[in-house]
Amino acid sequence: MFPTIQAASEAIRSGQSTPIDLLDQCLQRTDKYEDKIKAWVYLDRDGAREQAEKLTAELKARQNRGPLHGIPIGIKDIIDVFDMPTAAGSKLWANSIAREDADLVKKLRQAGAIIMGKLTTTQYASFDPSPTRNPWNLERTPGGSSSGPAAAVACGMCLGAIGSQTGGSITRPAAYCGIASCKPSHGLVSGKGLVPLAPSMDHPGPMARSIWDLAVMLETTAEDSGLDLMSGLAKPHPVRFGRPRGLFEDLAAPIVKAITNEVEKTLRDCGSPVDRVALPAAFSEVLSRHRMIMAVEAAVYHEQRLMRHPEDYKPNITKLLQEGLACPAPEYARCKEHQWALRASATQWFGRANVLLTPATTSAAPDMATTGDPAFNSPWSYTGLPTVSIPVGRDQDGMPLSIQLVGRQSEESVLFAAAAWCEKVLAQPLLDPPC
Amino acid sequence: MFPTIQAASEAIRSGQSTPIDLLDQCLQRTDKYEDKIKAWVYLDRDGAREQAEKLTAELKARQNRGPLHGIPIGIKDIIDVFDMPTAAGSKLWANSIAREDADLVKKLRQAGAIIMGKLTTTQYASFDPSPTRNPWNLERTPGGSSSGPAAAVACGMCLGAIGSQTGGSITRPAAYCGIASCKPSHGLVSGKGLVPLAPSMDHPGPMARSIWDLAVMLETTAEDSGLDLMSGLAKPHPVRFGRPRGLFEDLAAPIVKAITNEVEKTLRDCGSPVDRVALPAAFSEVLSRHRMIMAVEAAVYHEQRLMRHPEDYKPNITKLLQEGLACPAPEYARCKEHQWALRASATQWFGRANVLLTPATTSAAPDMATTGDPAFNSPWSYTGLPTVSIPVGRDQDGMPLSIQLVGRQSEESVLFAAAAWCEKVLAQPLLDPPC
Repeated sequence: MFPTIQAASEAIRSGQSTPIDLLDQCLQRTDKYEDKIKAWVYLDRDGAREQAEKLTAELKARQNRGPLHGIPIGIKDIIDVFDMPTAAGSKLWANSIAREDADLVKKLRQAGAIIMGKLTTTQYASFDPSPTRNPWNLERTPGGSSSGPAAAVACGMCLGAIGSQTGGSITRPAAYCGIASCKPSHGLVSGKGLVPLAPSMDHPGPMARSIWDLAVMLETTAEDSGLDLMSGLAKPHPVRFGRPRGLFEDLAAPIVKAITNEVEKTLRDCGSPVDRVALPAAFSEVLSRHRMIMAVEAAVYHEQRLMRHPEDYKPNITKLLQEGLACPAPEYARCKEHQWALRASATQWFGRANVLLTPATTSAAPDMATTGDPAFNSPWSYTGLPTVSIPVGRDQDGMPLSIQLVGRQSEESVLFAAAAWCEKVLAQPLLDPPC
Repeated sequence: MFPTIQAASEAIRSGQSTPIDLLDQCLQRTDKYEDKIKAWVYLDRDGAREQAEKLTAELKARQNRGPLHGIPIGIKDIIDVFDMPTAAGSKLWANSIAREDADLVKKLRQAGAIIMGKLTTTQYASFDPSPTRNPWNLERTPGGSSSGPAAAVACGMCLGAIGSQTGGSITRPAAYCGIASCKPSHGLVSGKGLVPLAPSMDHPGPMARSIWDLAVMLETTAEDSGLDLMSGLAKPHPVRFGRPRGLFEDLAAPIVKAITNEVEKTLRDCGSPVDRVALPAAFSEVLSRHRMIMAVEAAVYHEQRLMRHPEDYKPNITKLLQEGLACPAPEYARCKEHQWALRASATQWFGRANVLLTPATTSAAPDMATTGDPAFNSPWSYTGLPTVSIPVGRDQDGMPLSIQLVGRQSEESVLFAAAAWCEKVLAQPLLDPPC
């Protein structure tokens, strides 16, 4: 079984492993899986080896930077990493070398992470599938837009990865590939050094194999240096959950509903109340308005390039941008008003619940023609509320399924304590994909 | 004679010319001179033509954005321009496309400037000569690091350019090529979107053919949107000049001293007092400490790349970085203390003078082996005080010479009024180079 960051970090702390060992293991798994999976855009073997040697030498000198010391990490290819290209799925940017690290990458390096390289993204973090395959079934999508990060972590090619989400681009691929993920509160992780899609909804965030792993990556990359998730993880405890229906059931496949019901039952049995939460009527417009805001904000960034280089835009992103360019300004203004109002009212519609419980996706991973349906994730990108997803089962074909937990704005500590508790009581064993 | 921005702008305002005409004239001069001069790294003929057509159409619709509307401008190749590579003299960055405009480029575009392309720089804005030649004598250096901007403006290939100075990288090439230039107060023009050399002394600034031209470019690119230089230019008036000796005479060639003396006499004859200014003793250490700060701050940025890609660093920048890497921290700390103390005391050593008068360079342009001596410019990069340089004569070989005016911190309006007055009373006709 591939190790979690937590297990690897403990092995390093106790002297049973070294950063060089961990990197070698990740590179061996890369050699084994990458031909089939195609998760990497740019793998910096030599650079990673140099970092691992330096970090191993530091340990010998009794310097340990903390839980990410020597942990191999992959970065989605819309995020700048010093001296590597940031292609973001563009042919014209294939050799555009980043002159410095994105803010979040700087923080990871500071904490001792080994930055292995760049992982695939759908073009410009939109909907056109990347070449990456789902490790649980090579004929299925790994999801998108963070396709490479999800597949690479699922195969242990790196122990954690940074993805980003504007609709469902972290939660969906993580769920499809059977790993855990977090989309933090909007703004908690800096977007400086990222190719934007829609800035008011762009969220960089961690993807890994356990809640502890997500917590250490989020604490490290957060702009709030006082963020404390570990205290909550030290003693996971039941919280009051809320289960919204409507949107989050109508679109779900029967197996998804069944598994979410099972989860609810287990949570209740273990002592957590689960309220029924009524989402406000405004929720019925979230998906269409989310799409419009994404289209308009993406067009702000891409308009000039699209005109100059239409050949460097695939069909889905082209269509999205055209929608944005065609949107009348008053319509966009109404969408923004709706977005802010819904965000501001969230504390009301949470009711007494601390954390909402929903399925992570409408179904397990579909085939390679699309990147799947982000309907259960986009509302939280839209409102900026933090989410965590946790693998909880498999469908008839053995494909992974996850639940999604939604926290109140900036209440990551409650969300993570709840997630750790779910992880504990749901007791889903970590599985390695069969590919 | 190649037009100034002022003349071109007036021709546009009066309907005698259009942005398309201006661009065509610049491209014709480029066709004539560029093979010999080698000022451009990247010339975007199609993109410039599109901008010119759009700006011409705006004029037909009676929209005039102001004095830079339709003016063709070139940008030094350490400054990001959307959809063009920023190579900064690096081979590995030759195809690194900028995803957005540097802040100052955004402001120029907003004001209606036509961004023609990228002009040569010495590698990483340091001392290794670029291939560019001096238009007044092809065997001489155009100076550096803003070699392309100086040569291109001198040949009328663009009507103005943005360069940058950390030592003498704006003033020196401008003087060697017989054009005017301004190094603004440190921080007045944003460095966001530039490859840094030494951030505490990096100054982007305009290079052009008259004080009016510099003023409109500086007003446009300044972070202070209320900067008003034009009022002072409307009625140029004599100010009290100060003439420092010491450093600024000992290193000067006899012809440089003679011409500066002539300038002083003319200024006095026209009614300006010229005080003798005694620079503080601390000035004797400026050049060595400037070099050390530049070396250390450049090493902060380049250290990792130099280790990974030593082959992508030419001899002079390599030597500079090695000096920086070898500098003991306390020595650097003493340099920074010295830098800040000298900056803080400037108002004292100016005495009653409003503006200092010095030669712009130690001599006319030397041969192609070096980029010349920045000794008269580095002190103002070091202290951050604003300077303007103005062509005032030629040496025995017909090579251009300039004076340098130094203003008090952030007193650009006084400096420009003084510069406009100098330009008027010195009555140096604008010359086109013979190349």
